[in-house]
Amino acid sequence: MRFYDDISVGDVRHSEEYTVSKSEITTFGEKYDPQPFHIDEDAAEDSVFGGLVASGWQTAAICMRLHVQSSEDTAAQVGVGVDNLRWHQPLRPGETLRLRNEVIDKRPSESDPGRGFVTTRHEGRNQDDELVISYEATAMVRRAPAE
Amino acid sequence: MRFYDDISVGDVRHSEEYTVSKSEITTFGEKYDPQPFHIDEDAAEDSVFGGLVASGWQTAAICMRLHVQSSEDTAAQVGVGVDNLRWHQPLRPGETLRLRNEVIDKRPSESDPGRGFVTTRHEGRNQDDELVISYEATAMVRRAPAE
Repeated sequence: MRFYDDISVGDVRHSEEYTVSKSEITTFGEKYDPQPFHIDEDAAEDSVFGGLVASGWQTAAICMRLHVQSSEDTAAQVGVGVDNLRWHQPLRPGETLRLRNEVIDKRPSESDPGRGFVTTRHEGRNQDDELVISYEATAMVRRAPAE
Repeated sequence: MRFYDDISVGDVRHSEEYTVSKSEITTFGEKYDPQPFHIDEDAAEDSVFGGLVASGWQTAAICMRLHVQSSEDTAAQVGVGVDNLRWHQPLRPGETLRLRNEVIDKRPSESDPGRGFVTTRHEGRNQDDELVISYEATAMVRRAPAE
């Protein structure tokens, strides 16, 4: 098990890939982001996107899945916050996302000696290596148990 | 239809309410954030949360739904980015979220005279008026058509 103490600034991980389907985009959109360009193919064609696109929150959720998969060896990560979340371009039906994570900061908790904060820069790119989403996420991670 | 030009800094809106069920939390968790405290009731009881909690990304997605519902009169809002996203406390099965939005900044686009950027502070609170999530979202909004 990888704890706070085992994580170093500069650590980089690459995720698996995730391909999003049209029905997954419209299902998420109908539930959480019912704007025409996420749920209605005809209306989406007349929109600024020229076709159906995934909700930006769905793109972020897919990144979370890829991150969880690529850090299964790490102690539970409790999300504290996210900064500089940017959607650079949309994710369309049939497109594939993969994630690159890099640890950019870590610091012990001042109030809880058993935990520390780790900040990771996430970049999600599509099948053409174009940047789709980026953000910096801070999570609380357990410190290694005392010997 | 409410366009960029009709939106003022200081505009405040209050959303409807949204109650999240246990099955909705585990369904979202299994698909997008498969950590034990989002998908497994027994494991969640032994976790730092002491029970099942919604993924932070699901909480954000619920806020998006509440925001779309409370701004149906506004021209299409294309999300550009989010800053200072913070999860203050978890959202648990059966709990209810409602959103307060306040416009904190607006500026015309320099590259596209037909659009402007609007930044809104979002605060999601639970049924006990406790702050669950907060963030500042920037979206591109169409300007009113020329007369």
